[in-house]
Amino acid sequence: MFKINENYLKLPGSYLFSAIGRKVAAYSQAHPDKKIIRLGIGDVTQPLAPAIIEALHGAVEEMGKAETFHGYAPDQGYEFLRSVIARQDYQDRGCQIAADEIFVSDGAKCDSGNIQEIFSLDNRIAVCDPVYPVYVDSNAMAGRTGSYDAGTGTWSNVIYMPCSMENGFVPSLPEEKPDMIYLCFPNNPTGATITRAQLQEWVDYAIRTGAVILYDAAYEAYISERDVPHSIYECQGARNCAIELRSFSKNAGFTGVRLGFTVVPRDLKCGDVRLHDLWARRHGTKYNGAPYIVQRAGWAVYSEAGRQQLQEQVAYYMENASTIYKGLTEAGYTVSGGINAPYIWLKTPGNMTSWEFFDCLLEQVGVVGTPGSGFGPSGEGYFRLTAFGSHENTAEALDRMKKLTF
Amino acid sequence: MFKINENYLKLPGSYLFSAIGRKVAAYSQAHPDKKIIRLGIGDVTQPLAPAIIEALHGAVEEMGKAETFHGYAPDQGYEFLRSVIARQDYQDRGCQIAADEIFVSDGAKCDSGNIQEIFSLDNRIAVCDPVYPVYVDSNAMAGRTGSYDAGTGTWSNVIYMPCSMENGFVPSLPEEKPDMIYLCFPNNPTGATITRAQLQEWVDYAIRTGAVILYDAAYEAYISERDVPHSIYECQGARNCAIELRSFSKNAGFTGVRLGFTVVPRDLKCGDVRLHDLWARRHGTKYNGAPYIVQRAGWAVYSEAGRQQLQEQVAYYMENASTIYKGLTEAGYTVSGGINAPYIWLKTPGNMTSWEFFDCLLEQVGVVGTPGSGFGPSGEGYFRLTAFGSHENTAEALDRMKKLTF
Repeated sequence: MFKINENYLKLPGSYLFSAIGRKVAAYSQAHPDKKIIRLGIGDVTQPLAPAIIEALHGAVEEMGKAETFHGYAPDQGYEFLRSVIARQDYQDRGCQIAADEIFVSDGAKCDSGNIQEIFSLDNRIAVCDPVYPVYVDSNAMAGRTGSYDAGTGTWSNVIYMPCSMENGFVPSLPEEKPDMIYLCFPNNPTGATITRAQLQEWVDYAIRTGAVILYDAAYEAYISERDVPHSIYECQGARNCAIELRSFSKNAGFTGVRLGFTVVPRDLKCGDVRLHDLWARRHGTKYNGAPYIVQRAGWAVYSEAGRQQLQEQVAYYMENASTIYKGLTEAGYTVSGGINAPYIWLKTPGNMTSWEFFDCLLEQVGVVGTPGSGFGPSGEGYFRLTAFGSHENTAEALDRMKKLTF
Repeated sequence: MFKINENYLKLPGSYLFSAIGRKVAAYSQAHPDKKIIRLGIGDVTQPLAPAIIEALHGAVEEMGKAETFHGYAPDQGYEFLRSVIARQDYQDRGCQIAADEIFVSDGAKCDSGNIQEIFSLDNRIAVCDPVYPVYVDSNAMAGRTGSYDAGTGTWSNVIYMPCSMENGFVPSLPEEKPDMIYLCFPNNPTGATITRAQLQEWVDYAIRTGAVILYDAAYEAYISERDVPHSIYECQGARNCAIELRSFSKNAGFTGVRLGFTVVPRDLKCGDVRLHDLWARRHGTKYNGAPYIVQRAGWAVYSEAGRQQLQEQVAYYMENASTIYKGLTEAGYTVSGGINAPYIWLKTPGNMTSWEFFDCLLEQVGVVGTPGSGFGPSGEGYFRLTAFGSHENTAEALDRMKKLTF
């Protein structure tokens, strides 16, 4: 008789977004005339930039003719895309990353979920708290996280690194030694960043203790301050201890197009074994390349026209971030994030729990956000708003929020 | 100190396609004037059908306008695609499969590699020999296959089910009881099929012994004979014991577009646990949906125009299969496959090994195929040719093969 992977049964239900969905649906039904403004889920709303649309049409044309048709893509991605990534995202910033250290994929969510496969089940992971749920859940499914305590919302074999207002949402080096450290900066959900000097401390720590850092830089396009690193490879020694995950979702509006990449430097080894070889094997065996037309769209992101158009798109969203940040600050909220990231993280007023504030916001003014407690225990008492709406909706949401009474 | 997944180190190198690549490169260098005809790798060559191109352009247009832009897709796939699949591929054939039992993905290779994750590491797998390498390799990476014996090319904890001319390349029920049974019909690499009555025996066996069948039907569009099932759900009881994997790669030329789906019926359970829930959780946590434009292209596959154009495309390739099958038979070869599948499986002449025949074919006449031994020990003495070339190249390859001397 076949048996299932019992680790799946330990996972708590994905209450967060289903609970949000249920509450929003109930509100809609009760108030069919009221317009709801959604600043909850981190999905973009602006259309793809013209340079990307043009590249997509061009690639579709190619697929319709025998002479220019493209079948199976190289597992690791087309050279035309990997080389432009290596040059513009890394070499032009002084990072020594070669095109063959880039693995193109269908998105950073998949890569964040899959990357743990090349590591031993005996490794112990450390995550920030609050945290993007995929890091923990994918390790839980593999059996690396011990047992779940529903009371505290934590796993017995995970090292949680609290991020709160007190430490500027940048964790301290953990007391217990982890083997795999997940870091995400600019951070989802807090919108916090790390300075180059702070990140260097993490790299030094990883080298000193033999840990590997899984660095999620999905939001790097939103960085506006100079001492904030765009890549972990801006730090000395990172080629020996870090894997970096990148996404096209937020810098180019690709949430529905699906493209990302992972960097695995050839210097990153466990004994004699290069992690690059393991990830190449994983890619070659269980993945079959990103679509040609999507890789052409990705290539257009790096064209001169594409870069300019996307700078404007990022600026559009960051204007929302600024609207929210300033508006809430003026209204007396304690706010962080929003400077180098499309997320605003606010302290719930009047000591409300995250869910109490969610209910209050939805029921009083029809605005939807995300309760911070859904991202981990240290998210309790916080709330996330995203900058991915339209200017009009964002401004209206702020006007409405100023009318809240508690 | 972090540790790696040691199972990866047990994997043999992917000698097959790299060895083919090296040999072809050496031949090209030695004979730069000679045209090589490649009937080795199973990649399509015909351009995408006009109905698909039109759907792609239309979807690209939508992505360029705010009102019709699509962000994150539903994890499981858009309803418009899942419902047309459920109706045309299943309900119209009398199979009780609902739209919410379809999980759209970026291809059957990924799904074949990932599906093992929802099962216990204690399960024992059974595979046909020869076999598509992903089934075994993905289980080896997870640690389910024991140790590898390079001499025999087999894993200690895998049940191999030999498929040879004697059993018409359809395996007998295994003597040892497996927990998970991988079946692929029409088969890659042998091109063999299974009758509905034969497949029913497997379903009955799985129910009797408590096994789950992972049924790969990637080549179902090539079926031409009436008693050959297009889906395992044509068999009684399959909803209780089988998962089916499907691909758009070969029926619609999507090798470079990337789309597939997996069917997990709600009746398929281990105790009280529905595998549907586990796969939904896996999809939701480690996958982020197939691109909107690609799902629209998939939808066009089921339109009236799309169906007609793709029938012609399949017929084009099957004319190649017929050319190869007849040509080789006339030349005195022992040939199988090619009737309900785009693969022709031939017995190497003169008791040559698979690799000896590969060398002979390349060096004497510049034709590239795939040595059967690369798919497993029972493939020794066989050779695979694919029907995915152009008519001209296929005819020329046959003319050349008739001039071979051994």
